[in-house]
Amino acid sequence: MKPWERYSPELVTDLYELTMAASYLDEGMSGEATFSLFIRDYPEFRSYFVSAGLQRLLEVLECLRFEAGSIEYLKSLGMFSAGFLEYLRGFRFSGTVRAIAEGRIFFSQEPVLEVTAPLIEAQVIETLVMNTIQAETLFASKAARVFHAARGKGLIDFGMRRAHGVDAALSAARASYIVGFMGTSDLLAGRIYGIPVFGTMAHSYVTSFDREIDSFLAFAKTFPNNTIFLIDTYDTVAGAKKAVAAAGIMARTGGKLLGVRLDSGDLAGLSRQVRQILDRAGFHDVKIMASGGLDEFELEAMAGEGAEIDVYAVGTKVDVSADAPYLDIAYKLVDYDRKPVLKLSSGKKTWVGKKQVLRFYDAAGKMHHDRLCMTPGVEGGGAESGEPLLELVMKGGKRVRRPETLGEIRARFSSEFERLPEKYRALRATEKYPVEVCESLQNLDQKTAEEKKRLEVDSVLGA
Amino acid sequence: MKPWERYSPELVTDLYELTMAASYLDEGMSGEATFSLFIRDYPEFRSYFVSAGLQRLLEVLECLRFEAGSIEYLKSLGMFSAGFLEYLRGFRFSGTVRAIAEGRIFFSQEPVLEVTAPLIEAQVIETLVMNTIQAETLFASKAARVFHAARGKGLIDFGMRRAHGVDAALSAARASYIVGFMGTSDLLAGRIYGIPVFGTMAHSYVTSFDREIDSFLAFAKTFPNNTIFLIDTYDTVAGAKKAVAAAGIMARTGGKLLGVRLDSGDLAGLSRQVRQILDRAGFHDVKIMASGGLDEFELEAMAGEGAEIDVYAVGTKVDVSADAPYLDIAYKLVDYDRKPVLKLSSGKKTWVGKKQVLRFYDAAGKMHHDRLCMTPGVEGGGAESGEPLLELVMKGGKRVRRPETLGEIRARFSSEFERLPEKYRALRATEKYPVEVCESLQNLDQKTAEEKKRLEVDSVLGA
Repeated sequence: MKPWERYSPELVTDLYELTMAASYLDEGMSGEATFSLFIRDYPEFRSYFVSAGLQRLLEVLECLRFEAGSIEYLKSLGMFSAGFLEYLRGFRFSGTVRAIAEGRIFFSQEPVLEVTAPLIEAQVIETLVMNTIQAETLFASKAARVFHAARGKGLIDFGMRRAHGVDAALSAARASYIVGFMGTSDLLAGRIYGIPVFGTMAHSYVTSFDREIDSFLAFAKTFPNNTIFLIDTYDTVAGAKKAVAAAGIMARTGGKLLGVRLDSGDLAGLSRQVRQILDRAGFHDVKIMASGGLDEFELEAMAGEGAEIDVYAVGTKVDVSADAPYLDIAYKLVDYDRKPVLKLSSGKKTWVGKKQVLRFYDAAGKMHHDRLCMTPGVEGGGAESGEPLLELVMKGGKRVRRPETLGEIRARFSSEFERLPEKYRALRATEKYPVEVCESLQNLDQKTAEEKKRLEVDSVLGA
Repeated sequence: MKPWERYSPELVTDLYELTMAASYLDEGMSGEATFSLFIRDYPEFRSYFVSAGLQRLLEVLECLRFEAGSIEYLKSLGMFSAGFLEYLRGFRFSGTVRAIAEGRIFFSQEPVLEVTAPLIEAQVIETLVMNTIQAETLFASKAARVFHAARGKGLIDFGMRRAHGVDAALSAARASYIVGFMGTSDLLAGRIYGIPVFGTMAHSYVTSFDREIDSFLAFAKTFPNNTIFLIDTYDTVAGAKKAVAAAGIMARTGGKLLGVRLDSGDLAGLSRQVRQILDRAGFHDVKIMASGGLDEFELEAMAGEGAEIDVYAVGTKVDVSADAPYLDIAYKLVDYDRKPVLKLSSGKKTWVGKKQVLRFYDAAGKMHHDRLCMTPGVEGGGAESGEPLLELVMKGGKRVRRPETLGEIRARFSSEFERLPEKYRALRATEKYPVEVCESLQNLDQKTAEEKKRLEVDSVLGA
C-alpha cells in the first residue's frame, strides 16, 4: 500500500486504542461510555474557536471497517488474540454523536463533540476523532482571525505548498472557505469540496521569458480575461508600468486585465504606488493582490498603513496556524456504565458527565455567556433555558441528517461571527468569554473527585 | 470522491502551475528547465536540516498521471483549452532529479533537490515537490533535535492525534524513525512503513474501572508481557505503588511488567520517586516512560534535573514542529534553455544555475564546511574537490536505483549526525555552519543580476 493511494481510516489510530479495546473485550466491558472532545485552553491571543471537520469525521465513522489488509497487519504484530481480530472484522461504529455544528463558535472547556457508544467503539475511534477535528478546527479558528483582520477585503488560501501534507492543505482550504475566504489555489480542494479556485503566476514564469513584458503578454494571450500579473520579480514599480503597458495591449485586443500581485517588499507602500500607476493609466478596476508571509497581524498593520490592496493571498501562516500550530484538545471519558468518571491528573481539568452547552444572548442578539450543564434527562440535569449547542448528528452509527453544503456552513459562520462581540473578536483579546458551569455539574464533579481521591490516593498513602 | 478514499496526486497542485503550463504550451516553450529546492533561512535556534520525504516524492513522480476524473474537473473550470487538456491526458514526468539523500544533513541556501525537465513538467510538479519534501524535512529536522536532547534515552512518536491530518502523522512517524526514534504509536505508519509500534494505556482506560488497580490487573491479563501502566490518573506516587502491587501479581502468574508511564506533573521529580518505589520492590528492570507536551527543551531540562526516565514519548510538539511549524522552502527556476535565470525580489535571494553542493571534512572526519558550486560540466563549473551531496536519483522520469529501506536511511542519519560538530547540534546554536559560494557561481549570479536589472528596471525607469 502506498501512502498516496489510499489510506485505511481504521488504522488512523494509536496502538493503545486497540490494546485497550482488546482488554475491554476480554473483560466483557461493553457498557455505554461517553467521551467529551474539548479544548482545554486558548493559545496566546486567542479567544474563540470555530467548529470544523465534523462532516469528514461522520463520513468516515459511518463506514469504518477493518479491512482484510489491516487485520493482517494487526495479526502480524503478534500481540492480539484470534478472538479480538475476529471482533475487529465485524467492527461497526454503532454509537451516538452530538456535536456543535460546523461554522459555530465555541470556547475552551466546552465539548465540541460528545460520543456515546459501547466503550470499545468509543475508545477505538479516539485518535481518528482528534486528528480529524483538531486540524480543521485549528485552521478555521486561525482563518477566522485573518478574515476579521481583512475587514471585508478578499482572501484566498495559497498555502498548499507548505501545509503539513495533502490532508492538511485540504482541511485548511475547506476551513478557510467556511469562514469567508473567496477560495483557494488548491485544485484537490477545488475538486473534492467544490471550492472556487484562483491563481496568478509564479516568478519562475516571469523569469523563463527573456523580458518581463513578454511573460505578461504571453499569459494574457492564453488567458485574455483571467490574468493577474505578478509584478515584483525584478522591481515592483517598474513591473507595474509594464503591467499597464500590457493591459493596454490586452484592452485593444478584447481582453481585460483582472489584477496585479505584489509578493515582496513594503506591500502597503508599494500598493499605494501601484494603485496610482494603474489609476493614472485609467485602469481603476484592475485589482491589487498581495501575498508573502501574511497573517492577521500583517493585515491589521497594512490596513493601518493605508494599503491599497483588494485581495490578500494568505498561505503558510494560515495553513500551519503558525503562531499556534496545535490546540490543546482532549478526548476524555466522562461517563461509563451510567456513572460519571474523571481523572485527577494535575493541571488537566475535565468536567465529568454527559454535557450540554447552553448559549445566552443579550438584548441586541450578541453572545453574552455560555453555560456548561449536565444533559437534560440525566439525573441532576435541569431543564435550563438557553440555546443548546450540541446537536444530535449521528445515531446508531448513521448520520441523522443529510450532509450540509459548504455554503450552508459558511452562512452559519457568517451570522455566528456577527453575534460575537467585538471584544472577543480582537486579534489580541484580553477578555475571555464567560463560560459558567451549572451548579449541579459542579456538585457532581466535586463529589466524583472526592470519592476518587479517597479511594485511590488516601487509601494507598495511608496503607 | 471522498478525501479519505484516495487522493489524486496530480491535483496536489496550485491552479497557477496549470495556467502557467497552458501558456508554456501555447508559446511552445519546451526548453529544458532546472528548478532548485532550498530553504532560505533557519528558524530560530536551528542550525541544520535533515533531508526527508524524497522516496515518497519519487514514487509519486514516477507514476504521475492526470486521470479522467481530474481532467473532467479541470475542464469544468472552463478556463483550459481542449489542446491543453489533451496535453495533460498524455502527461508524464520525464525529467531528471538530483537530490541530497534522505537522512543527510544540509544547510540553508543549499539545494536539497534539483529538478531538470522540460519547463512544463518541472513547473507542474512544483507544489507536489514542496508539499512532500517540506513537511517530512520539517519533522525530521525537529525530531533530530529531540533525538540529540534525549542523550541516548528511548524515544517514541505519540503525535498522531494532533498532527495536521493523516499525512502529517505518517510523515512525522517516518521522519522521527529516520533520526533514531524507536518507533511510533501510529498504526498506519506501522503498516505502510513497517515502523515498530508502541503503546501504553489511556486515562480513559484507567477511569473506566472502579479502581485503578483493577485496570492494571485487567490489562496485564490480556497482555502479560507487553504492559506499561499509566500511573498518573489520580496520583502518580500512589499509582506507582499500585503498579508495584500489580507487577508482583503479574510475576507470580508468569507475566512481566515492562514499564510505567508518567503523563503530568513534575516529571523529573516524580520519576525519581517512582524509580525508588520500583527499585525498593525489586523491579529494577521496569522502565519509566514519560509523556505530556515534551520537546527538546523539556528533555534537556529534565536531564539537568536528574530525571530517571528511560523512554520519552513525544507527540504534538514534534508532529507539528511547534516552535517552527514551517520552513522557508522555495522551488525556484535557476536555469532555462541553457541560460541562468533569477529574480531580484527584495529580501529573497536565489542562486542562479544548476548547482552542486560539496562537503569538506576536517582531519577528525567532522563536517568542516560546504561549498555551493556550479555543476561540473556546465560552463564555468570547475572540477572541485569535496564530497558532492546532490546525487542522481531519477532520470527520464524513472528512479535510477531501488528504493532505500528505512533502516538504510536511519543508519545514514546516524553516521551523518556523528560527523556534525557539537556546536551545530546545540539546541540553541549561535554559530552557523559555513556554506561558501564558489567564485564562478558568484560571478555568474552577479552578471545575471546586473543584466536583468539593466533590462527590467533601469530601462523602464529611464523611459
